[in-house]
Amino acid sequence: MSQQDLAVVILAAGKGTRMKSNLHKVLHPLGGRPMLHHLLDTLEQLHPSRKVIVVGAGKEQVQQSVGDQAETITQEPQLGTGHAVQVTGDQLRGFEGDVLILYGDVPLLSAETLENLIRVRRGANDPAVVVLGFEPKDTKAYGRLVVNDQGILEAIVEHKDATSAQREIGLCNSGIMAVNGAVMFDLLDQLDDNNAAGEFYLTDIVGIAKSKGYECAVSVADEAEVIGINSRSELAEAEAAFQQACRHSFMAAGVTLLAPETVHFSYDTVIGRDVVIEPNVFFGPGVVIEDDVTVKGFSHFEGAIVRTGATVGPYARLRPKADVGRNAKIGNFVEVKKSVIGEGAKVSHLSYIGDAVIGAHANIGAGTITCNYDGYNKALTEIGKGAFIGSNTALVAPVKIGDGAIVGAGSVVTREVESDALAVTRANQKEIGGWAAKFRSKQTKK
Amino acid sequence: MSQQDLAVVILAAGKGTRMKSNLHKVLHPLGGRPMLHHLLDTLEQLHPSRKVIVVGAGKEQVQQSVGDQAETITQEPQLGTGHAVQVTGDQLRGFEGDVLILYGDVPLLSAETLENLIRVRRGANDPAVVVLGFEPKDTKAYGRLVVNDQGILEAIVEHKDATSAQREIGLCNSGIMAVNGAVMFDLLDQLDDNNAAGEFYLTDIVGIAKSKGYECAVSVADEAEVIGINSRSELAEAEAAFQQACRHSFMAAGVTLLAPETVHFSYDTVIGRDVVIEPNVFFGPGVVIEDDVTVKGFSHFEGAIVRTGATVGPYARLRPKADVGRNAKIGNFVEVKKSVIGEGAKVSHLSYIGDAVIGAHANIGAGTITCNYDGYNKALTEIGKGAFIGSNTALVAPVKIGDGAIVGAGSVVTREVESDALAVTRANQKEIGGWAAKFRSKQTKK
Amino acid sequence: MSQQDLAVVILAAGKGTRMKSNLHKVLHPLGGRPMLHHLLDTLEQLHPSRKVIVVGAGKEQVQQSVGDQAETITQEPQLGTGHAVQVTGDQLRGFEGDVLILYGDVPLLSAETLENLIRVRRGANDPAVVVLGFEPKDTKAYGRLVVNDQGILEAIVEHKDATSAQREIGLCNSGIMAVNGAVMFDLLDQLDDNNAAGEFYLTDIVGIAKSKGYECAVSVADEAEVIGINSRSELAEAEAAFQQACRHSFMAAGVTLLAPETVHFSYDTVIGRDVVIEPNVFFGPGVVIEDDVTVKGFSHFEGAIVRTGATVGPYARLRPKADVGRNAKIGNFVEVKKSVIGEGAKVSHLSYIGDAVIGAHANIGAGTITCNYDGYNKALTEIGKGAFIGSNTALVAPVKIGDGAIVGAGSVVTREVESDALAVTRANQKEIGGWAAKFRSKQTKK
Repeated sequence: MSQQDLAVVILAAGKGTRMKSNLHKVLHPLGGRPMLHHLLDTLEQLHPSRKVIVVGAGKEQVQQSVGDQAETITQEPQLGTGHAVQVTGDQLRGFEGDVLILYGDVPLLSAETLENLIRVRRGANDPAVVVLGFEPKDTKAYGRLVVNDQGILEAIVEHKDATSAQREIGLCNSGIMAVNGAVMFDLLDQLDDNNAAGEFYLTDIVGIAKSKGYECAVSVADEAEVIGINSRSELAEAEAAFQQACRHSFMAAGVTLLAPETVHFSYDTVIGRDVVIEPNVFFGPGVVIEDDVTVKGFSHFEGAIVRTGATVGPYARLRPKADVGRNAKIGNFVEVKKSVIGEGAKVSHLSYIGDAVIGAHANIGAGTITCNYDGYNKALTEIGKGAFIGSNTALVAPVKIGDGAIVGAGSVVTREVESDALAVTRANQKEIGGWAAKFRSKQTKK
Repeated sequence: MSQQDLAVVILAAGKGTRMKSNLHKVLHPLGGRPMLHHLLDTLEQLHPSRKVIVVGAGKEQVQQSVGDQAETITQEPQLGTGHAVQVTGDQLRGFEGDVLILYGDVPLLSAETLENLIRVRRGANDPAVVVLGFEPKDTKAYGRLVVNDQGILEAIVEHKDATSAQREIGLCNSGIMAVNGAVMFDLLDQLDDNNAAGEFYLTDIVGIAKSKGYECAVSVADEAEVIGINSRSELAEAEAAFQQACRHSFMAAGVTLLAPETVHFSYDTVIGRDVVIEPNVFFGPGVVIEDDVTVKGFSHFEGAIVRTGATVGPYARLRPKADVGRNAKIGNFVEVKKSVIGEGAKVSHLSYIGDAVIGAHANIGAGTITCNYDGYNKALTEIGKGAFIGSNTALVAPVKIGDGAIVGAGSVVTREVESDALAVTRANQKEIGGWAAKFRSKQTKK
Repeated sequence: MSQQDLAVVILAAGKGTRMKSNLHKVLHPLGGRPMLHHLLDTLEQLHPSRKVIVVGAGKEQVQQSVGDQAETITQEPQLGTGHAVQVTGDQLRGFEGDVLILYGDVPLLSAETLENLIRVRRGANDPAVVVLGFEPKDTKAYGRLVVNDQGILEAIVEHKDATSAQREIGLCNSGIMAVNGAVMFDLLDQLDDNNAAGEFYLTDIVGIAKSKGYECAVSVADEAEVIGINSRSELAEAEAAFQQACRHSFMAAGVTLLAPETVHFSYDTVIGRDVVIEPNVFFGPGVVIEDDVTVKGFSHFEGAIVRTGATVGPYARLRPKADVGRNAKIGNFVEVKKSVIGEGAKVSHLSYIGDAVIGAHANIGAGTITCNYDGYNKALTEIGKGAFIGSNTALVAPVKIGDGAIVGAGSVVTREVESDALAVTRANQKEIGGWAAKFRSKQTKK
């Protein structure tokens, strides 16, 4: 769709009281990113020329989160949804294209649904307002869309005002609209607040449009796309639906999930074919798992890449910029951060690898720690190809272990180790015969 | 309700055969404490003057668990529920108040339900017996409560004896009762065992009361509160219901649960506002999480407190008396036991901190172990404010590290380290050139 | 049932395209072993004289997996299910017993169901073909079994060919059959491919048999047993059903599962009575847990045995041939592989125990590593009864620690330690006063 024709208003001024949170409601994450950003990313596909987010309290939080992805303006005081669109006057009065009116707490709309909505707006009869309807399983107290035989929207009837015949209508009002920008403010300007709440309702522009002789129409979306998030329980439900969709899509693409309901994905997780994932695995944002990788249980990923054929876990924690090479192995109780693990290299147990480059086929013993931090700076550890690091070794960075070198168990390596050399820092083993027996006898006499 | 008027009998003599357990059925935990204690705690709110638990086999277990919270008496032989109440004669004959008859394996009754029951007992018509009814989704083979137009309980009809009209009755007998203590033994004394099982049924006191001209009445509870636990599957279902209620209540109070169904709480878990909990977290008893804490996945808590703004996990294990300070960080594969972690201090990886006091803003390197145990005694490790402990360090307690001191990686600290000093125990790094190459060549020739 | 009478054909030539996998569909694991092996193990109970697996692509994979448990033959090209049985001519022409025709992707048939099927084949009227029917919740597009009043199978009608009356039939065709071997090839030889797909359908032998005057009959199975697995989602559903059955069976036998849906079992997991399992535990193949064991959360088992009264986890990883003794304790972040842990011994934290024998009541300190691997060979660590290994110790195998010996914290033990001796390898603790203060001041000036 052409960029010059579309503007988007996102209403996000609601107080979100039921979230009981200091974080703005639309910034609560879903699938690993703020719900508002799901919406913004979807909008990218429509190329709108303007995006205006109407915010009340917490504007700074929203502004900081969206950066230059959208304008944020303030609705203060907050006098209803119609008023919220009215305050976009500085931005949109005079705009002649289409205006999409969305809600920051309805984050899972698909681009396809929005494109359909716009298509109806631009289609037959040139309707001034197109309302996005949905057919919920339970119509609850939703407003009903009264549509005539020609598919023309006659009215939006609030549940409390609906006749019993109207309550039989299954098509409900999502609140989402596409409006002809050329007439939008003419309609908005006629809104009044003569109602119980004393608010200006956006919904009323349909009646106003009809009274002025404009057409109105509907487009229809799946219930799942238009349900809003007003509490943490609803957020958890949306998250569950999002996860369920991810799981099915990965399984369809050739990923085995032994217990799908225990694996948690992020919006951008990438997983290859013939990957096997044991129960209880967490993928935070930015993770790529290539083909034929085995992920054992209780593993936790953020911002990491695992290359073809590697084995990871159980209890592997891969943090941002961990890059695990082809056929490499990361074992249990191992943390890797900002490090490249070479092809076929092994870090099998109880290690912390941070700010390191490990050569192909190196073997890192249990209990190896890269001491990458001195309290002020981070420094690099380089381990050569085929090197063997003995257990319980501390590598004090910056430090380099040459190709094929061996470091003895229990060492603290502070200086470079040459290729193919053996390095060891170790005091002699001393023994005092009978000492333990005496110690015990003293203790038990106490 | 006034204390002098109420006695409670808890029937817990059932063999619990279906549990297949050496642990007494009523002692199996639910939400982290024995099911019997859920009941005892609820009863606290009613201030009963006597609590009598009727036990069969396993009396010692029950006695040890309840201590002086209730009397335990033995029903031996076990001749039915009516007989079980009869054996409380020594305790309750002559008691003139109300007697509540409960079951040790029906642990989730609310105080409100019991108060309602007592209120009916004390209310209109002074009924001798008030039966707690419920309306199950599936009436199965439950006994039905026949109630007349005036709300008076006419009879309890066993399912097998019920006419088809009576089987249409949705109101079923939970077995729970409130009885006028002044007449209870008069009624009990007339029970007989002329039935197929040869048992004295408590239920029969309703018929006896009616025949003696007393009124009987009903009070109604939710099904969820009165369902009994007879097997581990039923225990797991009750646990699931308990957990589900916890999750909803925490979310409503402002806690984010990314995957609510994977987080396990205890009866006394306390969690603050804007706490974010990743999937797969376990809260054993006695845990307090203050506001704005982030709990990453795969964390396990028991008896610990985590203060405002701290970050914990993934893979953090906080054991009893771990006290994690404001804005402190406990990272992955870290165990903390009986230790105070100062404000802003960090224990980021692979450490065991036991019996320690760590000062504010101290940094504890990966692989740090407090050696708090010599096989006989536990001793204290004190680490000063702003101290920096290098990786793979063993701190042999009792030992003290001064404020701002630095301990070099791989050290074994056995003596006090002064404030602002550097301490290190380290042998020199020795290197044997070419040794590794020779070793490999020998190995590959084998 | 007698061995000489039964042959089994397992059809496994389907391409399994929807699995999107390089692994043959029938080799995808379910409950920890390939689905084909579930079937082969069930067949063991029927003592068939021949088992013939008909394979298309991926024959080598199947052959390697089944070894000498069955013959594998190739169907190439693949011209339908009837053709798949036709190609067993070399194996089964002339065989006069009963032939069971099964599918490699229908793995959860019970022996009882198959015995019933064979019993019908051998029973009244000597039917030439007995079809295994099932009554699905949703009959979808399954073929319907038309059975007359005498229970005789009249016809199999494909859904698309069915009259609306026939579509009311609830009994559907699973495709599984028992056929009289003496006539099977007479029937198969008359199959034709005059149908839309141009395939030879096994189903058609029923019509052929009827036309030749033979009886046909049905036997009925539960839907859960006959549902095929064609995608990873269906595999996950089958796995979920398998797990659910395991959980109920363990709970019924006296195992407490705090959160059953988070515990994952394998086909051969053995768990004793009064075992308590916290949430999030994974049992890979080959695990035995004896009575009264406590398994704390986030534990991962493969091929290990845990003896009576032991406590394991949280975060315990027991790998193959870990043998944890009576009342022993394996704590958090501990990996045990091919090691015997003596009665009452403790490995409480952050340790790797591989290729070791640990004596009764030994205490292994936090951070202990058995250095069992030099890059080429694995070697043994022996720790005597009652020995005490200080924290952060590396035991360089082969090495032996005598009974009752004590090893000081931070040691690297390379030589045998005598019984009751104290061994320690440790450099002196050196201290440089004020060094840390100077370091900090330099860093902060930067």
